[in-house]
Amino acid sequence: RVNGDRLWDSLMDMAKIGPGIAGGNNRQTLTDSDAEGRSLFRTWCEDAGLTLGIDKMGTMFATRPGTDPDALPVYVGSHLDTQPTGGKYDGVLGVLGALEVVRTMNDLGIKTKHPIVVTNWTNEEGARFAPAMLASGVFAGVHTLEYAYERKDPEGKTFGDELKRIGWVGDEQVGARKMHAYFEYHIEQGPILEVENKQIGVVTHCQGLWWLEFTLTGREAHTGSTPMNMRVNAGLAMSRIIEMVQTVAMENQPGAVGGVGQVFFTPNSRNVLPGKVVFTVDIRSPDQAKLDGMRARIEKEAPDICEALGVGCAIEAIGHFAPVTFDPTLVSRVRGAAERLGYSHMNLISGAGHDACWAAKVAPTTMVMCPCVGGLSHNEAEDISKEWAAAGADVLFHAVVETAEI
Amino acid sequence: RVNGDRLWDSLMDMAKIGPGIAGGNNRQTLTDSDAEGRSLFRTWCEDAGLTLGIDKMGTMFATRPGTDPDALPVYVGSHLDTQPTGGKYDGVLGVLGALEVVRTMNDLGIKTKHPIVVTNWTNEEGARFAPAMLASGVFAGVHTLEYAYERKDPEGKTFGDELKRIGWVGDEQVGARKMHAYFEYHIEQGPILEVENKQIGVVTHCQGLWWLEFTLTGREAHTGSTPMNMRVNAGLAMSRIIEMVQTVAMENQPGAVGGVGQVFFTPNSRNVLPGKVVFTVDIRSPDQAKLDGMRARIEKEAPDICEALGVGCAIEAIGHFAPVTFDPTLVSRVRGAAERLGYSHMNLISGAGHDACWAAKVAPTTMVMCPCVGGLSHNEAEDISKEWAAAGADVLFHAVVETAEI
Ligand SMILES: NC(=O)NCCC(=O)O
Ligand SMILES: NC(=O)NCCC(=O)O
Repeated sequence: RVNGDRLWDSLMDMAKIGPGIAGGNNRQTLTDSDAEGRSLFRTWCEDAGLTLGIDKMGTMFATRPGTDPDALPVYVGSHLDTQPTGGKYDGVLGVLGALEVVRTMNDLGIKTKHPIVVTNWTNEEGARFAPAMLASGVFAGVHTLEYAYERKDPEGKTFGDELKRIGWVGDEQVGARKMHAYFEYHIEQGPILEVENKQIGVVTHCQGLWWLEFTLTGREAHTGSTPMNMRVNAGLAMSRIIEMVQTVAMENQPGAVGGVGQVFFTPNSRNVLPGKVVFTVDIRSPDQAKLDGMRARIEKEAPDICEALGVGCAIEAIGHFAPVTFDPTLVSRVRGAAERLGYSHMNLISGAGHDACWAAKVAPTTMVMCPCVGGLSHNEAEDISKEWAAAGADVLFHAVVETAEI
Repeated sequence: RVNGDRLWDSLMDMAKIGPGIAGGNNRQTLTDSDAEGRSLFRTWCEDAGLTLGIDKMGTMFATRPGTDPDALPVYVGSHLDTQPTGGKYDGVLGVLGALEVVRTMNDLGIKTKHPIVVTNWTNEEGARFAPAMLASGVFAGVHTLEYAYERKDPEGKTFGDELKRIGWVGDEQVGARKMHAYFEYHIEQGPILEVENKQIGVVTHCQGLWWLEFTLTGREAHTGSTPMNMRVNAGLAMSRIIEMVQTVAMENQPGAVGGVGQVFFTPNSRNVLPGKVVFTVDIRSPDQAKLDGMRARIEKEAPDICEALGVGCAIEAIGHFAPVTFDPTLVSRVRGAAERLGYSHMNLISGAGHDACWAAKVAPTTMVMCPCVGGLSHNEAEDISKEWAAAGADVLFHAVVETAEI
């Protein structure tokens, strides 16, 4: 079993970097806080005897050598970046859980045939730079490095410039590493494990996603002196599209979600009808046909909504991953570890996207999940218990060691 | 008649300060550009032989003396501040039109019994600091000076601090001045004069307004892993309220408007359902009963919409003025001037609020309007012709001189 106290202490130490305003964290990717978090993680890796490699996306790979020089490494990780109002565990648990796995191996003097690589992927959240899971996406060959470097935050700063600014551009070619397997440990970010009273989620699938960025063009005009029948009201069109997305998601139950988290009005003045409204629709389903059906319906109905109001409507797909089926061998290894350790468990479909979704394209991959209070995530109030954290890390430890072969 | 070329040249010179991004202006109140515009206006006032007084709200009063030491002044003005994406004429035409009146009087050697005071009110737009018409509101005793000083812009800077920062805090007590009459010349900001092919709007009334600021409280949660039935979706509630406001406005036709120009999502991240949504509803009508009925209905229906979604709903009235009836004597003086000068004219109800609405509380007041292309305002593409500008200034000149008495 891992050292649950040590894991918890590391989680609490990392949470001191980039504090939020309500007990959580704001350690968005490529900020000064992100750099500080990376430095602390590097120190911990060095203390554990790991050797750090960094690729051109800034992803950190900390290696514990194996006994067979020809054996490919087992990668274990997640991300240290957070949402602007994020929790202390989303991503962080997966990186520090992986670190706890190798710390425990050191404690027990365990040697494995395959090296173990503790991994911190850059910009998983996609909050500052869309799309999410950007570095793992480049690693898996889904995006080019140039595409990633050109992504812009809301202030117009590019990913490439900001990575350089914080001093974490590595020299490794992205995706050059070959993986024997990839494991990711994460909080569920949903309510099911808690409701079902299970300690461990055995993640068999991840649902797919589309991010559709809408740019609606209205006519800026005075809210007082512009008669109702002369308005070209992009804000009203947005409202109708948000309602329509809600309807589409509800009509695709069970197993689909849809919503809008980000909205920009221009010029955003109380007495000016917006000339431009930009917002992003997030739709997901584990069922590829449903997911694509939802997208098609939204892309058909939104332009009609806009046309009725004279509003211009441009839609760009700025994020996508298809539903993923994780590797059956690794999945049963996770299930077997939970059994052996006496932890209650159930199969889960991940509602959130993870770097594991892209890793699955290039290696046998799976995930381990633990519950989180009220299913709440992407919220500073995100919470887990020390026992939950330790149980998942135990399962991860067993599945990883089994895969890396003693 | 006034010198239309000179008026136009001054308009174009002022428009060079605080340029926008699409041919208009971004000279928001209490910015460095506002300070620059004020300095240019002061120079012009001094060149015209006027004496400048400034009150504690930063409002500029440039006086041309009268012949009777006991006669109260006739005030003529508007505002030099603009929307973030504003036009070159909204407000500016009224200030520089007033300046053109005294320049013309100087040219013709006209002396009046009553002094003339060319006026530039601070923060008419309300774009940076709500409510609109803030300085004239304090002048008329509607707001206290303390209330005004505490208004905050979206960055949290206060009106009081920013007025000090740009160096335009005057020493005059706000509202200490007594007015014989107040005239304001403005572009219509609506479509009617152009559609009706009239040169002059004789403004008999101004419609009333409520600004209702909504703060909706949802639950920040992951857009992917939060099932539809567990969402507390403040963005969806906002969408339904925007649609409801549209319905309420349409059911109060003719003569009512309603819409939303400003929206803030928090944390405004693509994969986070917003925990907080703040937006402002702007409703107006020339009919007091209709206006209050609209407000009552919105304040009744919005909480129901929110409750059905579990969303918290707080509503604060952050701006208000009642419908105004302008002074019948001054109104007929404007109509008479248009007649005499041979300009086509019609009665108008102002759709926008103006400093004249507050001045009307403390002095006989009216307005003169000229058309604007397509009724477009609060848009950088706002446009008028030199001839339209000059015709309105001619009417203003005649009505002001008649009121100030030769
Ligand atoms: N795990 C997680 O929150 N990832 C962010 C990408 C997503 O929106 O699913
Ligand atoms: N004239 C003008 O645009 N005033 C701003 C206040 C309002 O919204 O009516």
